[in-house]
Amino acid sequence: MICRKCKKRKAVINIKAYRLPLCDECYPGWFIERTKKVIKEFSLLKKEDRILTAVSGGKDSLSLWHTLCKIGYNADGLYIHLGIEGYSERSLEKCRIASEKLNRRLIVYNLKEKTGKSIPEIKDLRSKCSTCGLAKRYIMNRTALEEGYNVVATGHNLDDECASLLSTALRWDLGYFGRQDINLPEMKGFVRKVKPFAFFSEKEVLTFALLQRIDYLDEECPYAEGATSILYKEVLNIIENRSPGTKIRFYREFLLKKKEFEKFRELEELRECSICGQLTTREICAFCKTFGKLENRSY
Amino acid sequence: MICRKCKKRKAVINIKAYRLPLCDECYPGWFIERTKKVIKEFSLLKKEDRILTAVSGGKDSLSLWHTLCKIGYNADGLYIHLGIEGYSERSLEKCRIASEKLNRRLIVYNLKEKTGKSIPEIKDLRSKCSTCGLAKRYIMNRTALEEGYNVVATGHNLDDECASLLSTALRWDLGYFGRQDINLPEMKGFVRKVKPFAFFSEKEVLTFALLQRIDYLDEECPYAEGATSILYKEVLNIIENRSPGTKIRFYREFLLKKKEFEKFRELEELRECSICGQLTTREICAFCKTFGKLENRSY
Repeated sequence: MICRKCKKRKAVINIKAYRLPLCDECYPGWFIERTKKVIKEFSLLKKEDRILTAVSGGKDSLSLWHTLCKIGYNADGLYIHLGIEGYSERSLEKCRIASEKLNRRLIVYNLKEKTGKSIPEIKDLRSKCSTCGLAKRYIMNRTALEEGYNVVATGHNLDDECASLLSTALRWDLGYFGRQDINLPEMKGFVRKVKPFAFFSEKEVLTFALLQRIDYLDEECPYAEGATSILYKEVLNIIENRSPGTKIRFYREFLLKKKEFEKFRELEELRECSICGQLTTREICAFCKTFGKLENRSY
Repeated sequence: MICRKCKKRKAVINIKAYRLPLCDECYPGWFIERTKKVIKEFSLLKKEDRILTAVSGGKDSLSLWHTLCKIGYNADGLYIHLGIEGYSERSLEKCRIASEKLNRRLIVYNLKEKTGKSIPEIKDLRSKCSTCGLAKRYIMNRTALEEGYNVVATGHNLDDECASLLSTALRWDLGYFGRQDINLPEMKGFVRKVKPFAFFSEKEVLTFALLQRIDYLDEECPYAEGATSILYKEVLNIIENRSPGTKIRFYREFLLKKKEFEKFRELEELRECSICGQLTTREICAFCKTFGKLENRSY
């Protein structure tokens, strides 16, 4: 197959949802232009934004950081060290390499040093994955607020977003639909959160990372094994292979219809957590409840 | 594995959603009791109902007819002959056998004889499967009205219902959610429609049909090949195998939440179709538009 853009070179990827074969030279340019279009269409970022990019060391978040800098955004990185034996150190190393290459600041938040507990030490009723998600959301927001960033960008791709939608649909958790978005607006105590890669499939991001020679960690978190999100991604890809474009339609149509689900969100009154001072619906926020039991935090 | 009920015989099926292994003697009784419970819980049928059971010759609808008669309901059968070469004749034969065995009336509606067109002859913009669905819904309702039945029962199983919900969710067709139900109430011009097997998986109905020696046609409609509904059933079963009970939760939770989607239904004014007189939102109903082009119907 020949590249649709240059009409000369051999295509390395055929983006079936757009019926678009592209070569290794044309693909990265298309990828960056597509990112710009999504940013514009959903008003994700402004030139003057101070962006904190949540980086895990994987292909998605490092490609995002790379792309945002390439476009010219003011984007630093935040790495959350979860204390997972070996995996966390190897991930951090990839983020440090990216930080040096991009010449941008990398903030490292070490969960064990800050709270006394790492993710492997959490013995919570919730699963490790959901506790880790809770910790990440809290730390991203708090670090952005404290360090003067007005928006957090995450590397969630189309597969992540569709798996999350499918999981929510299988539970009919209508209120949760109301909270999912490509652009979660700023609210009192919460910075804006955006997902500029939400329309790229995992394969498209991987192809970009490989062609741009982004040095990322090709390793799943050891706790992710058997996660239902991986299963949901697999089944959605089975459907996608039969009907190319299904995932994009599923996600795009959701964004159009999501306002219908906002009324199911229970908008409770927010108050300051009595331990950390961050906004929460309870006396003590979920983060402090999980990580702050041992001692009072000084921050 | 030993049967949970008699605690003696070897189990032939392990119903994972309920963690219930049952033997060949205990299973049919459990199946019938479970049908009764679903009928009661969702007020599907009353003792005095005159039921028209839509039968296709397959395991689901013939098992349903068999079960309704066994429970003691007043249930006749309706077979819609679609004119599909060979397949329709073989299906009809199985329905005739059931009719004789149950000693109940079988109404046969021959699409070609009544309208001049069979399903294979339909060259419509819509797919054959959706035209066939339209024809069946129309004929079931009209026959029930004309022959004095107050309720139509169909053999839809849990796999059918979940595949349909998944398909609707992937399109975010919120209005369509409002129309899906285990018990579609009677409306002016439309008899009640119920699905007493909606909580049985396809495998559970198959096991019942085999153990009860129901003589059914084990053949897919030749036009169903490659239907997305088959794909959706496959992927839902991949999820079910990993997390038994997912399909039942998906369906049950939907029935609890479906009222939230009713407002998305466009409730248009109904009037009589100028050809057949059945209620429709247009001048000519969709059935007459597709099947009534050649000549005016006499019925």
